[in-house]
Amino acid sequence: MAALPVDITDPADPRIAAFLSIRERDLTGREGRFIAEGTVVLRMLAAAHGQDRGFYAEAVLILQARLAGVAEILDRLPPDVPVYVAEAPVFNAIAGFDMHRGVLAIGRRQGAPDLDGVLNNAPSLVLAACGLSNHDNMGALFRNAAAFGAGAVVMDRGSCDPTYRKAIRVSVGAVLTVPFAREGTIGEVIGRLKAQGYALWGLSPRGRVPLDAIPPSPRTALLVGTEGEGLPAEIMAAIDTARIAQAPGLDSLNVATAAAIALHRIAMVNGLIG
Amino acid sequence: MAALPVDITDPADPRIAAFLSIRERDLTGREGRFIAEGTVVLRMLAAAHGQDRGFYAEAVLILQARLAGVAEILDRLPPDVPVYVAEAPVFNAIAGFDMHRGVLAIGRRQGAPDLDGVLNNAPSLVLAACGLSNHDNMGALFRNAAAFGAGAVVMDRGSCDPTYRKAIRVSVGAVLTVPFAREGTIGEVIGRLKAQGYALWGLSPRGRVPLDAIPPSPRTALLVGTEGEGLPAEIMAAIDTARIAQAPGLDSLNVATAAAIALHRIAMVNGLIG
Repeated sequence: MAALPVDITDPADPRIAAFLSIRERDLTGREGRFIAEGTVVLRMLAAAHGQDRGFYAEAVLILQARLAGVAEILDRLPPDVPVYVAEAPVFNAIAGFDMHRGVLAIGRRQGAPDLDGVLNNAPSLVLAACGLSNHDNMGALFRNAAAFGAGAVVMDRGSCDPTYRKAIRVSVGAVLTVPFAREGTIGEVIGRLKAQGYALWGLSPRGRVPLDAIPPSPRTALLVGTEGEGLPAEIMAAIDTARIAQAPGLDSLNVATAAAIALHRIAMVNGLIG
Repeated sequence: MAALPVDITDPADPRIAAFLSIRERDLTGREGRFIAEGTVVLRMLAAAHGQDRGFYAEAVLILQARLAGVAEILDRLPPDVPVYVAEAPVFNAIAGFDMHRGVLAIGRRQGAPDLDGVLNNAPSLVLAACGLSNHDNMGALFRNAAAFGAGAVVMDRGSCDPTYRKAIRVSVGAVLTVPFAREGTIGEVIGRLKAQGYALWGLSPRGRVPLDAIPPSPRTALLVGTEGEGLPAEIMAAIDTARIAQAPGLDSLNVATAAAIALHRIAMVNGLIG
Protein backbone atom coordinates (compact mmCIF):
# COMPACT_ATOMS: atom_id res chain seq x y z
CA MET A 1 0.00 0.00 0.00
CA ALA A 2 1.41 3.36 -1.07
CA ALA A 3 1.52 6.54 0.96
CA LEU A 4 -1.31 9.03 0.52
CA PRO A 5 -0.27 11.70 -1.98
CA VAL A 6 0.75 15.00 -0.42
CA ASP A 7 -0.06 18.18 -2.36
CA ILE A 8 2.86 20.56 -2.73
CA THR A 9 1.95 24.16 -3.55
CA ASP A 10 5.22 25.93 -2.68
CA PRO A 11 8.46 25.11 -4.52
CA ALA A 12 10.31 26.03 -1.31
CA ASP A 13 8.47 23.40 0.74
CA PRO A 14 11.26 21.64 2.68
CA ARG A 15 9.68 18.25 2.10
CA ILE A 16 10.64 18.34 -1.58
CA ALA A 17 14.06 19.96 -1.13
CA ALA A 18 15.73 16.86 -2.58
CA PHE A 19 14.03 17.49 -5.93
CA LEU A 20 15.20 21.10 -6.24
CA SER A 21 17.22 21.82 -9.37
CA ILE A 22 17.91 18.21 -10.17
CA ARG A 23 19.99 19.08 -13.19
CA GLU A 24 22.63 20.69 -11.00
CA ARG A 25 22.32 18.11 -8.23
CA ASP A 26 22.97 15.46 -10.78
CA LEU A 27 26.56 16.62 -11.04
CA THR A 28 27.43 16.84 -7.36
CA GLY A 29 28.21 14.34 -4.62
CA ARG A 30 25.13 12.30 -3.91
CA GLU A 31 25.76 9.61 -1.28
CA GLY A 32 24.25 6.89 -3.41
CA ARG A 33 21.21 8.94 -4.40
CA PHE A 34 19.97 9.22 -7.94
CA ILE A 35 17.15 10.66 -10.02
CA ALA A 36 14.63 8.41 -11.74
CA GLU A 37 12.61 10.02 -14.54
CA GLY A 38 9.56 8.82 -16.37
CA THR A 39 6.98 6.09 -15.94
CA VAL A 40 9.10 3.22 -17.24
CA VAL A 41 11.98 3.96 -14.87
CA LEU A 42 9.65 4.57 -11.92
CA ARG A 43 8.09 1.18 -12.56
CA MET A 44 11.51 -0.46 -12.47
CA LEU A 45 12.51 1.41 -9.33
CA ALA A 46 9.32 0.31 -7.58
CA ALA A 47 10.00 -3.29 -8.58
CA ALA A 48 13.60 -3.06 -7.34
CA HIS A 49 12.75 -1.31 -4.07
CA GLY A 50 14.11 -3.24 -1.10
CA GLN A 51 15.20 -6.22 -3.17
CA ASP A 52 18.68 -7.71 -3.07
CA ARG A 53 20.19 -5.22 -5.53
CA GLY A 54 20.33 -2.43 -2.94
CA PHE A 55 17.89 -0.06 -4.65
CA TYR A 56 15.40 2.02 -2.70
CA ALA A 57 12.84 4.67 -3.60
CA GLU A 58 13.15 7.57 -1.17
CA ALA A 59 10.48 9.91 -2.46
CA VAL A 60 8.28 10.40 -5.52
CA LEU A 61 7.14 13.64 -7.16
CA ILE A 62 4.30 13.45 -9.66
CA LEU A 63 2.62 16.03 -11.83
CA GLN A 64 -1.02 16.21 -10.76
CA ALA A 65 -2.20 15.34 -14.26
CA ARG A 66 -0.09 12.18 -14.29
CA LEU A 67 -1.12 10.81 -10.89
CA ALA A 68 -3.91 8.52 -12.07
CA GLY A 69 -1.66 7.09 -14.77
CA VAL A 70 0.97 5.92 -12.32
CA ALA A 71 -1.34 4.89 -9.45
CA GLU A 72 -0.77 1.17 -9.98
CA ILE A 73 3.00 1.70 -9.81
CA LEU A 74 2.75 3.74 -6.63
CA ASP A 75 0.62 0.99 -5.11
CA ARG A 76 3.68 -1.26 -5.13
CA LEU A 77 5.68 1.08 -2.92
CA PRO A 78 5.45 0.80 0.88
CA PRO A 79 3.65 3.57 2.80
CA ASP A 80 6.89 5.02 4.19
CA VAL A 81 7.90 6.27 0.73
CA PRO A 82 6.33 9.72 0.44
CA VAL A 83 4.45 10.65 -2.73
CA TYR A 84 4.33 14.37 -3.50
CA VAL A 85 2.01 15.88 -6.09
CA ALA A 86 2.25 19.30 -7.73
CA GLU A 87 0.61 21.26 -10.51
CA ALA A 88 2.73 22.12 -13.56
CA PRO A 89 3.99 25.60 -12.50
CA VAL A 90 5.09 24.35 -9.10
CA PHE A 91 6.46 21.10 -10.53
CA ASN A 92 8.59 22.95 -13.06
CA ALA A 93 9.82 25.40 -10.44
CA ILE A 94 10.87 22.50 -8.23
CA ALA A 95 12.61 20.47 -10.87
CA GLY A 96 14.51 23.41 -12.33
CA PHE A 97 13.47 22.84 -15.91
CA ASP A 98 10.44 21.58 -17.76
CA MET A 99 9.98 17.92 -16.86
CA HIS A 100 7.35 17.16 -19.42
CA ARG A 101 6.98 13.61 -18.32
CA GLY A 102 5.89 14.77 -14.90
CA VAL A 103 7.20 11.65 -13.16
CA LEU A 104 10.24 11.91 -10.86
CA ALA A 105 11.67 9.94 -7.99
CA ILE A 106 14.70 10.13 -5.73
CA GLY A 107 16.30 6.73 -5.48
CA ARG A 108 19.13 5.43 -3.34
CA ARG A 109 21.63 2.66 -3.98
CA GLN A 110 23.02 1.26 -0.76
CA GLY A 111 24.37 -2.11 0.24
CA ALA A 112 24.46 -3.24 -3.39
CA PRO A 113 26.44 -6.40 -4.18
CA ASP A 114 30.12 -5.78 -4.94
CA LEU A 115 32.05 -7.29 -7.84
CA ASP A 116 32.39 -10.66 -6.12
CA GLY A 117 28.73 -10.65 -5.24
CA VAL A 118 27.71 -9.87 -8.81
CA LEU A 119 29.96 -12.57 -10.27
CA ASN A 120 28.98 -15.16 -7.67
CA ASN A 121 25.65 -15.38 -9.45
CA ALA A 122 27.67 -16.87 -12.31
CA PRO A 123 25.97 -15.11 -15.22
CA SER A 124 26.74 -16.75 -18.59
CA LEU A 125 27.39 -13.41 -20.28
CA VAL A 126 29.03 -10.39 -18.65
CA LEU A 127 29.71 -7.00 -20.19
CA ALA A 128 32.83 -5.31 -18.84
CA ALA A 129 33.81 -1.67 -19.42
CA CYS A 130 37.07 0.19 -18.91
CA GLY A 131 37.23 3.96 -18.53
CA LEU A 132 33.83 4.65 -20.02
CA SER A 133 33.21 8.34 -19.38
CA ASN A 134 30.06 9.25 -21.27
CA HIS A 135 26.71 8.82 -19.53
CA ASP A 136 24.79 8.36 -22.76
CA ASN A 137 27.08 5.52 -23.76
CA MET A 138 26.89 4.01 -20.29
CA GLY A 139 23.11 4.01 -20.44
CA ALA A 140 23.10 2.55 -23.94
CA LEU A 141 25.49 -0.20 -22.80
CA PHE A 142 23.05 -1.23 -20.08
CA ARG A 143 20.12 -1.13 -22.50
CA ASN A 144 22.00 -3.43 -24.87
CA ALA A 145 23.22 -5.69 -22.07
CA ALA A 146 19.60 -6.20 -21.02
CA ALA A 147 18.46 -6.79 -24.59
CA PHE A 148 20.90 -9.64 -25.09
CA GLY A 149 20.62 -11.27 -21.71
CA ALA A 150 23.89 -10.18 -20.16
CA GLY A 151 23.59 -11.07 -16.47
CA ALA A 152 25.92 -8.36 -15.22
CA VAL A 153 27.81 -5.22 -16.18
CA VAL A 154 31.15 -4.76 -14.42
CA MET A 155 33.45 -1.78 -14.80
CA ASP A 156 36.54 -0.19 -13.35
CA ARG A 157 36.25 2.72 -10.94
CA GLY A 158 37.42 5.03 -13.73
CA SER A 159 34.13 4.51 -15.53
CA CYS A 160 31.29 6.93 -14.90
CA ASP A 161 28.45 6.16 -12.50
CA PRO A 162 25.57 4.29 -14.17
CA THR A 163 23.10 5.84 -11.74
CA TYR A 164 23.50 9.32 -13.14
CA ARG A 165 20.15 10.66 -14.31
CA LYS A 166 20.92 10.60 -18.01
CA ALA A 167 22.50 7.14 -17.95
CA ILE A 168 19.41 5.69 -16.27
CA ARG A 169 17.14 7.43 -18.76
CA VAL A 170 19.10 6.28 -21.82
CA SER A 171 19.21 2.75 -20.40
CA VAL A 172 15.38 2.77 -20.33
CA GLY A 173 15.75 1.64 -16.73
CA ALA A 174 18.12 -1.26 -17.41
CA VAL A 175 20.55 0.23 -14.86
CA LEU A 176 17.93 -0.80 -12.27
CA THR A 177 17.54 -4.34 -13.62
CA VAL A 178 20.97 -5.56 -14.75
CA PRO A 179 23.27 -6.25 -11.77
CA PHE A 180 26.42 -4.17 -11.89
CA ALA A 181 29.59 -3.40 -9.95
CA ARG A 182 32.05 -0.52 -10.39
CA GLU A 183 35.28 -0.92 -8.45
CA GLY A 184 39.02 -1.37 -8.75
CA THR A 185 41.32 -1.00 -11.71
CA ILE A 186 40.54 -2.69 -15.00
CA GLY A 187 43.41 -5.07 -14.23
CA GLU A 188 41.67 -6.09 -11.02
CA VAL A 189 38.34 -6.52 -12.79
CA ILE A 190 39.98 -8.70 -15.43
CA GLY A 191 41.72 -10.74 -12.75
CA ARG A 192 38.44 -11.39 -10.99
CA LEU A 193 36.69 -12.39 -14.21
CA LYS A 194 39.46 -14.84 -15.10
CA ALA A 195 39.48 -16.27 -11.58
CA GLN A 196 35.77 -16.95 -11.99
CA GLY A 197 36.42 -18.91 -15.16
CA TYR A 198 35.30 -16.35 -17.71
CA ALA A 199 36.51 -16.45 -21.29
CA LEU A 200 37.44 -12.79 -21.65
CA TRP A 201 37.28 -11.04 -25.03
CA GLY A 202 38.33 -7.48 -25.64
CA LEU A 203 36.42 -5.69 -28.39
CA SER A 204 38.45 -3.35 -30.57
CA PRO A 205 38.81 -2.32 -34.23
CA ARG A 206 42.33 -3.76 -33.82
CA GLY A 207 41.09 -7.06 -32.37
CA ARG A 208 43.06 -10.09 -33.54
CA VAL A 209 40.18 -12.32 -34.65
CA PRO A 210 36.85 -11.54 -36.29
CA LEU A 211 33.82 -11.44 -34.01
CA ASP A 212 32.42 -14.67 -35.42
CA ALA A 213 35.54 -16.53 -34.27
CA ILE A 214 34.64 -16.12 -30.58
CA PRO A 215 33.82 -19.70 -29.54
CA PRO A 216 30.93 -20.74 -27.33
CA SER A 217 31.72 -20.85 -23.63
CA PRO A 218 29.66 -21.40 -20.46
CA ARG A 219 30.93 -18.01 -19.27
CA THR A 220 31.95 -15.22 -21.60
CA ALA A 221 32.91 -11.66 -20.65
CA LEU A 222 33.08 -8.97 -23.33
CA LEU A 223 35.34 -6.01 -22.50
CA VAL A 224 34.91 -2.60 -24.15
CA GLY A 225 37.11 0.46 -23.71
CA THR A 226 36.76 4.19 -23.43
CA GLU A 227 35.14 6.17 -26.22
CA GLY A 228 38.15 7.84 -27.76
CA GLU A 229 41.12 5.64 -26.99
CA GLY A 230 39.56 2.22 -26.83
CA LEU A 231 41.23 -0.45 -24.72
CA PRO A 232 44.71 0.35 -23.38
CA ALA A 233 47.53 -1.30 -25.34
CA GLU A 234 48.73 -3.31 -22.35
CA ILE A 235 45.26 -4.76 -21.86
CA MET A 236 44.96 -5.52 -25.59
CA ALA A 237 48.25 -7.39 -25.39
CA ALA A 238 47.24 -9.44 -22.36
CA ILE A 239 43.85 -10.83 -23.42
CA ASP A 240 42.08 -12.31 -26.43
CA THR A 241 40.63 -9.62 -28.67
CA ALA A 242 38.04 -9.56 -31.44
CA ARG A 243 37.06 -7.01 -34.07
CA ILE A 244 33.86 -6.12 -35.88
CA ALA A 245 34.38 -5.97 -39.63
CA GLN A 246 33.72 -2.51 -41.02
CA ALA A 247 33.94 -0.68 -44.31
CA PRO A 248 37.53 0.14 -45.29
CA GLY A 249 39.02 3.30 -43.83
CA LEU A 250 36.40 3.67 -41.15
CA ASP A 251 36.58 3.11 -37.43
CA SER A 252 33.39 4.77 -36.60
CA LEU A 253 31.16 2.62 -34.44
CA ASN A 254 29.84 4.02 -31.20
CA VAL A 255 31.07 1.90 -28.26
CA ALA A 256 27.57 0.89 -27.18
CA THR A 257 26.63 0.00 -30.76
CA ALA A 258 29.76 -2.11 -31.12
CA ALA A 259 28.96 -3.82 -27.83
CA ALA A 260 25.42 -4.54 -29.04
CA ILE A 261 26.69 -6.24 -32.18
CA ALA A 262 29.14 -8.36 -30.20
CA LEU A 263 26.72 -9.21 -27.37
CA HIS A 264 24.11 -10.28 -29.91
CA ARG A 265 26.58 -12.60 -31.63
CA ILE A 266 27.95 -14.07 -28.38
CA ALA A 267 24.44 -14.59 -27.02
CA MET A 268 23.48 -16.32 -30.28
CA VAL A 269 26.40 -18.77 -30.35
CA ASN A 270 25.80 -19.64 -26.71
CA GLY A 271 22.09 -20.16 -27.18
CA LEU A 272 21.16 -17.41 -24.71
CA ILE A 273 18.81 -15.87 -27.25
CA GLY A 274 17.30 -17.06 -30.51
CA MET B 1 43.48 28.26 -51.97
CA ALA B 2 41.28 29.40 -49.08
CA ALA B 3 40.04 32.89 -48.41
CA LEU B 4 42.08 35.08 -46.09
CA PRO B 5 40.61 34.90 -42.57
CA VAL B 6 38.54 37.92 -41.59
CA ASP B 7 38.64 38.98 -37.92
CA ILE B 8 35.23 39.53 -36.37
CA THR B 9 35.17 41.67 -33.24
CA ASP B 10 31.48 42.55 -33.04
CA PRO B 11 28.81 39.85 -32.64
CA ALA B 12 26.45 42.14 -34.57
CA ASP B 13 28.73 42.26 -37.61
CA PRO B 14 26.35 41.62 -40.55
CA ARG B 15 28.88 39.36 -42.24
CA ILE B 16 28.33 36.65 -39.64
CA ALA B 17 24.56 37.10 -39.27
CA ALA B 18 24.00 33.56 -40.53
CA PHE B 19 25.79 32.16 -37.47
CA LEU B 20 23.71 34.07 -34.94
CA SER B 21 21.91 31.90 -32.42
CA ILE B 22 22.37 28.72 -34.37
CA ARG B 23 20.46 26.66 -31.84
CA GLU B 24 17.27 28.53 -32.64
CA ARG B 25 17.96 28.75 -36.36
CA ASP B 26 18.35 25.02 -36.42
CA LEU B 27 14.63 24.67 -35.84
CA THR B 28 13.37 27.09 -38.46
CA GLY B 29 13.03 27.03 -42.23
CA ARG B 30 16.46 26.96 -43.78
CA GLU B 31 16.32 26.74 -47.59
CA GLY B 32 18.76 23.86 -47.70
CA ARG B 33 21.18 25.44 -45.24
CA PHE B 34 22.67 23.56 -42.33
CA ILE B 35 25.19 23.91 -39.51
CA ALA B 36 28.40 21.90 -39.51
CA GLU B 37 30.19 21.65 -36.15
CA GLY B 38 33.63 20.43 -35.27
CA THR B 39 36.81 19.60 -37.13
CA VAL B 40 35.72 16.17 -38.40
CA VAL B 41 32.52 17.49 -39.94
CA LEU B 42 34.25 20.56 -41.39
CA ARG B 43 36.77 18.25 -43.07
CA MET B 44 33.95 16.26 -44.64
CA LEU B 45 32.13 19.39 -45.75
CA ALA B 46 35.30 20.71 -47.39
CA ALA B 47 35.76 17.40 -49.19
CA ALA B 48 32.13 17.39 -50.35
CA HIS B 49 32.08 21.04 -51.43
CA GLY B 50 31.01 21.38 -55.06
CA GLN B 51 31.04 17.63 -55.70
CA ASP B 52 28.11 15.73 -57.21
CA ARG B 53 26.24 15.33 -53.90
CA GLY B 54 25.06 18.95 -53.91
CA PHE B 55 26.91 20.07 -50.78
CA TYR B 56 28.49 23.50 -50.50
CA ALA B 57 30.28 25.37 -47.73
CA GLU B 58 28.89 28.91 -47.55
CA ALA B 59 30.94 30.37 -44.71
CA VAL B 60 33.22 29.24 -41.91
CA LEU B 61 33.57 30.64 -38.38
CA ILE B 62 36.60 29.59 -36.37
CA LEU B 63 37.73 30.33 -32.84
CA GLN B 64 41.03 32.19 -33.07
CA ALA B 65 42.80 29.54 -30.97
CA ARG B 66 41.65 26.80 -33.37
CA LEU B 67 42.64 28.48 -36.62
CA ALA B 68 46.09 26.90 -36.99
CA GLY B 69 44.65 23.45 -36.28
CA VAL B 70 42.18 23.61 -39.17
CA ALA B 71 44.37 25.49 -41.65
CA GLU B 72 44.93 22.47 -43.88
CA ILE B 73 41.18 21.89 -44.08
CA LEU B 74 40.48 25.52 -44.97
CA ASP B 75 43.13 25.29 -47.69
CA ARG B 76 40.85 22.89 -49.56
CA LEU B 77 38.04 25.43 -49.80
CA PRO B 78 37.94 27.85 -52.72
CA PRO B 79 38.65 31.55 -52.00
CA ASP B 80 35.01 32.57 -52.44
CA VAL B 81 34.06 30.80 -49.18
CA PRO B 82 34.63 33.38 -46.45
CA VAL B 83 36.49 32.37 -43.30
CA TYR B 84 35.66 34.40 -40.20
CA VAL B 85 37.72 34.29 -37.03
CA ALA B 86 36.71 35.44 -33.54
CA GLU B 87 38.03 35.32 -30.00
CA ALA B 88 36.08 33.26 -27.45
CA PRO B 89 33.80 35.98 -26.01
CA VAL B 90 32.73 37.14 -29.46
CA PHE B 91 32.49 33.58 -30.78
CA ASN B 92 30.22 32.54 -27.93
CA ALA B 93 28.07 35.63 -28.32
CA ILE B 94 27.65 34.88 -32.01
CA ALA B 95 26.86 31.21 -31.70
CA GLY B 96 24.37 31.69 -28.88
CA PHE B 97 25.93 29.18 -26.53
CA ASP B 98 29.36 27.87 -25.67
CA MET B 99 30.72 26.15 -28.74
CA HIS B 100 33.74 24.58 -27.13
CA ARG B 101 34.95 23.04 -30.30
CA GLY B 102 35.29 26.47 -31.87
CA VAL B 103 34.73 25.19 -35.40
CA LEU B 104 31.51 26.09 -37.24
CA ALA B 105 30.39 26.30 -40.83
CA ILE B 106 27.21 27.13 -42.69
CA GLY B 107 26.60 24.55 -45.38
CA ARG B 108 24.03 24.34 -48.15
CA ARG B 109 22.51 21.32 -49.84
CA GLN B 110 21.20 22.19 -53.28
CA GLY B 111 20.74 20.19 -56.46
CA ALA B 112 21.37 16.93 -54.61
CA PRO B 113 20.46 13.69 -56.40
CA ASP B 114 16.85 12.57 -55.88
CA LEU B 115 15.76 9.03 -55.00
CA ASP B 116 16.19 7.81 -58.57
CA GLY B 117 19.58 9.44 -58.78
CA VAL B 118 20.73 7.83 -55.56
CA LEU B 119 19.51 4.38 -56.57
CA ASN B 120 20.88 4.65 -60.10
CA ASN B 121 24.31 4.23 -58.57
CA ALA B 122 23.13 0.72 -57.73
CA PRO B 123 24.56 0.40 -54.23
CA SER B 124 24.66 -3.21 -53.00
CA LEU B 125 23.28 -2.27 -49.59
CA VAL B 126 20.69 0.43 -48.90
CA LEU B 127 19.27 1.51 -45.55
CA ALA B 128 15.66 2.71 -45.76
CA ALA B 129 13.78 4.51 -42.98
CA CYS B 130 10.10 5.21 -42.46
CA GLY B 131 8.84 7.99 -40.21
CA LEU B 132 12.05 8.38 -38.26
CA SER B 133 11.53 11.51 -36.16
CA ASN B 134 14.52 11.72 -33.81
CA HIS B 135 17.63 13.55 -34.99
CA ASP B 136 19.95 11.57 -32.73
CA ASN B 137 18.66 8.33 -34.19
CA MET B 138 18.88 9.71 -37.71
CA GLY B 139 22.51 10.66 -37.16
CA ALA B 140 23.32 7.29 -35.62
CA LEU B 141 21.68 5.53 -38.59
CA PHE B 142 23.99 7.37 -40.98
CA ARG B 143 27.03 6.60 -38.83
CA ASN B 144 26.15 2.91 -38.87
CA ALA B 145 25.30 2.93 -42.57
CA ALA B 146 28.77 4.31 -43.26
CA ALA B 147 30.44 1.80 -40.95
CA PHE B 148 28.97 -1.16 -42.80
CA GLY B 149 29.30 0.11 -46.33
CA ALA B 150 25.69 0.99 -47.10
CA GLY B 151 25.81 2.95 -50.34
CA ALA B 152 22.71 5.00 -49.67
CA VAL B 153 20.13 5.96 -47.07
CA VAL B 154 16.63 6.54 -48.41
CA MET B 155 13.63 7.68 -46.37
CA ASP B 156 10.08 8.87 -46.69
CA ARG B 157 9.29 12.57 -46.45
CA GLY B 158 7.83 11.90 -42.98
CA SER B 159 11.31 11.25 -41.65
CA CYS B 160 13.28 14.12 -40.15
CA ASP B 161 15.92 16.02 -42.09
CA PRO B 162 19.39 14.41 -41.80
CA THR B 163 21.03 17.81 -42.26
CA TYR B 164 19.84 19.12 -38.91
CA ARG B 165 22.78 20.17 -36.77
CA LYS B 166 22.48 17.40 -34.21
CA ALA B 167 21.94 14.65 -36.78
CA ILE B 168 25.10 15.67 -38.62
CA ARG B 169 27.05 15.78 -35.39
CA VAL B 170 25.84 12.38 -34.16
CA SER B 171 26.57 10.92 -37.61
CA VAL B 172 30.21 12.05 -37.20
CA GLY B 173 29.77 13.61 -40.63
CA ALA B 174 28.40 10.53 -42.37
CA VAL B 175 25.39 12.60 -43.48
CA LEU B 176 27.88 14.38 -45.75
CA THR B 177 29.40 11.17 -47.14
CA VAL B 178 26.58 8.61 -47.54
CA PRO B 179 24.26 9.53 -50.43
CA PHE B 180 20.68 9.99 -49.31
CA ALA B 181 17.24 10.92 -50.54
CA ARG B 182 14.15 11.90 -48.55
CA GLU B 183 10.97 12.05 -50.61
CA GLY B 184 7.55 10.49 -51.12
CA THR B 185 5.58 8.10 -48.97
CA ILE B 186 7.17 4.94 -47.66
CA GLY B 187 5.00 3.04 -50.16
CA GLU B 188 6.58 5.02 -52.97
CA VAL B 189 10.09 4.45 -51.59
CA ILE B 190 9.42 0.72 -51.35
CA GLY B 191 8.04 0.66 -54.89
CA ARG B 192 11.16 2.33 -56.23
CA LEU B 193 13.46 -0.06 -54.36
CA LYS B 194 11.60 -3.08 -55.69
CA ALA B 195 11.59 -1.68 -59.23
CA GLN B 196 15.37 -1.38 -58.97
CA GLY B 197 15.64 -5.05 -58.05
CA TYR B 198 16.28 -4.72 -54.33
CA ALA B 199 15.56 -7.57 -51.96
CA LEU B 200 13.69 -5.58 -49.31
CA TRP B 201 13.73 -6.64 -45.65
CA GLY B 202 11.79 -4.91 -42.91
CA LEU B 203 13.44 -5.04 -39.47
CA SER B 204 11.08 -5.49 -36.53
CA PRO B 205 10.85 -7.39 -33.22
CA ARG B 206 7.86 -9.06 -34.90
CA GLY B 207 9.80 -9.97 -38.04
CA ARG B 208 8.91 -13.37 -39.48
CA VAL B 209 12.41 -14.85 -39.85
CA PRO B 210 15.57 -14.48 -37.77
CA LEU B 211 18.16 -12.03 -39.01
CA ASP B 212 20.57 -14.78 -40.00
CA ALA B 213 17.98 -16.13 -42.47
CA ILE B 214 18.29 -13.12 -44.77
CA PRO B 215 19.96 -14.62 -47.86
CA PRO B 216 22.76 -13.02 -49.84
CA SER B 217 21.62 -10.79 -52.69
CA PRO B 218 23.39 -8.46 -55.12
CA ARG B 219 21.09 -5.69 -53.85
CA THR B 220 19.60 -5.65 -50.37
CA ALA B 221 17.58 -2.86 -48.76
CA LEU B 222 16.96 -2.89 -45.00
CA LEU B 223 13.89 -0.96 -43.85
CA VAL B 224 13.52 0.36 -40.30
CA GLY B 225 10.52 2.12 -38.80
CA THR B 226 9.78 4.95 -36.44
CA GLU B 227 11.09 4.86 -32.88
CA GLY B 228 7.93 4.10 -30.97
CA GLU B 229 5.61 2.33 -33.37
CA GLY B 230 8.06 0.53 -35.61
CA LEU B 231 6.98 -0.33 -39.14
CA PRO B 232 3.28 0.16 -39.98
CA ALA B 233 1.29 -3.08 -39.98
CA GLU B 234 0.36 -2.74 -43.65
CA ILE B 235 4.03 -2.43 -44.59
CA MET B 236 4.95 -5.39 -42.39
CA ALA B 237 2.30 -7.48 -44.16
CA ALA B 238 3.50 -6.51 -47.64
CA ILE B 239 7.24 -7.23 -47.41
CA ASP B 240 9.68 -9.78 -46.03
CA THR B 241 10.56 -9.08 -42.41
CA ALA B 242 13.32 -10.19 -40.06
CA ARG B 243 13.83 -9.97 -36.31
CA ILE B 244 16.84 -9.69 -34.03
CA ALA B 245 16.73 -12.28 -31.27
CA GLN B 246 16.54 -10.68 -27.83
CA ALA B 247 16.19 -11.72 -24.22
CA PRO B 248 12.64 -12.83 -23.35
CA GLY B 249 10.19 -10.11 -22.45
CA LEU B 250 12.26 -7.31 -23.85
CA ASP B 251 11.82 -5.23 -26.96
CA SER B 252 14.31 -2.64 -26.09
CA LEU B 253 16.79 -2.03 -28.86
CA ASN B 254 17.28 1.49 -30.12
CA VAL B 255 16.37 1.71 -33.82
CA ALA B 256 19.88 2.72 -34.90
CA THR B 257 21.42 -0.05 -32.79
CA ALA B 258 19.07 -2.60 -34.32
CA ALA B 259 19.95 -1.31 -37.78
CA ALA B 260 23.66 -1.62 -36.98
CA ILE B 261 23.29 -5.27 -36.00
CA ALA B 262 21.32 -6.03 -39.15
CA LEU B 263 23.55 -4.03 -41.51
CA HIS B 264 26.63 -5.75 -40.09
CA ARG B 265 25.12 -9.18 -40.70
CA ILE B 266 23.85 -8.36 -44.21
CA ALA B 267 27.19 -6.81 -45.16
CA MET B 268 28.96 -9.93 -43.86
CA VAL B 269 26.87 -12.46 -45.79
CA ASN B 270 27.27 -10.41 -48.96
CA GLY B 271 31.02 -10.04 -48.55
CA LEU B 272 30.84 -6.24 -48.37
CA ILE B 273 32.97 -6.25 -45.22
CA GLY B 274 35.11 -8.80 -43.46
